[in-house]
Amino acid sequence: MAAPVEFYFDFASPYGYLASTQIDAIAERHGRSVDWHPMLLGAVFRVTGGQPLTGIPMKGEYTAHDLLRFAGFLDVPFRMPDPMPMHPVAAARAYYWREQAEGPGPAKVFAKAMLHAHFGEGRDLSRPDAIAELADAAGLDSKAMLEGMQSQSVKERLRSVTEEAIGKGVFGSPFVIVDGEGFWGADRLDQVERWLTTGGW
Amino acid sequence: MAAPVEFYFDFASPYGYLASTQIDAIAERHGRSVDWHPMLLGAVFRVTGGQPLTGIPMKGEYTAHDLLRFAGFLDVPFRMPDPMPMHPVAAARAYYWREQAEGPGPAKVFAKAMLHAHFGEGRDLSRPDAIAELADAAGLDSKAMLEGMQSQSVKERLRSVTEEAIGKGVFGSPFVIVDGEGFWGADRLDQVERWLTTGGW
Repeated sequence: MAAPVEFYFDFASPYGYLASTQIDAIAERHGRSVDWHPMLLGAVFRVTGGQPLTGIPMKGEYTAHDLLRFAGFLDVPFRMPDPMPMHPVAAARAYYWREQAEGPGPAKVFAKAMLHAHFGEGRDLSRPDAIAELADAAGLDSKAMLEGMQSQSVKERLRSVTEEAIGKGVFGSPFVIVDGEGFWGADRLDQVERWLTTGGW
Repeated sequence: MAAPVEFYFDFASPYGYLASTQIDAIAERHGRSVDWHPMLLGAVFRVTGGQPLTGIPMKGEYTAHDLLRFAGFLDVPFRMPDPMPMHPVAAARAYYWREQAEGPGPAKVFAKAMLHAHFGEGRDLSRPDAIAELADAAGLDSKAMLEGMQSQSVKERLRSVTEEAIGKGVFGSPFVIVDGEGFWGADRLDQVERWLTTGGW
């Protein structure tokens, strides 16, 4: 069995969302699973001097348009969240709490629900109570989740994944690693797919 | 006859080069011609605060790797120029001199020769004498070209195309406009092609 594809993203990253709607199916076509690794892009930007795309003159307006168009190209729902970028910490902690409590499979299911709520419906998930609402809707124990999100082990896990990501050269979201080969951007998924097919070129 | 596709790029932009190897064939498949518009990205960066990708921590190293891989994906030659980015003014002026002297068709042919020399062979074209060598090799009158590159009308044309580009929201290279719809990046050519097919989605 080939190694899982690694998928790094930030819950506040719209291109991360677009990639999240495709990556599992792409990997599956090549007999691979995908390990999801939510991380905090803000920590990366402190290293690279990067900034959210939407704040840059000309590029910001283009990006808003590109996102809607790209979502249409992929035929996935997209509604511009306000604010964008939101604070992704609560969502990322909720993910790692689910992972610790139930394992990566259920964590991924809840990650998809959060990403859909944020980018498919435009809901702000910056605050833990917004996450709790989603947990309730999914039939999860939102009280346990809110408590778990404050646990030291969850906070530590998010911190260590983010540091590990930086160590692997992850400087943006989404970032996909296939057998050590890193691809940045929802617009590299065609190359990810070819790499999975051929192992390089 | 549908309007030409507009192709904006900077001669020092490696992703502009990658797109230049594809855009005419893409447009041709849909019965369109392409108007090439070399411009100066430096003037745009003064508006947006942008900077060459290669100077950004982490992103710079990734970009060098991505370019080679992307060129392989497209099966076009690529050799990292030194310096990168070069000064693109001489190449852009040579283009517009050819355009004024012979028209856009011959100018495009010479543009392709310059892009290939720079990104396919890694040759520095910052200095006019490097452009003159290419002109000689192409059987052109290099002395007339060097003189023409200094003419007021050529300098003015490059300046006005660059200003026009900024006015149209062009903030990066390559930038393709199809019937008023702008696409930034060599990684949007799949969307450009779909847009040419469907006129939107």
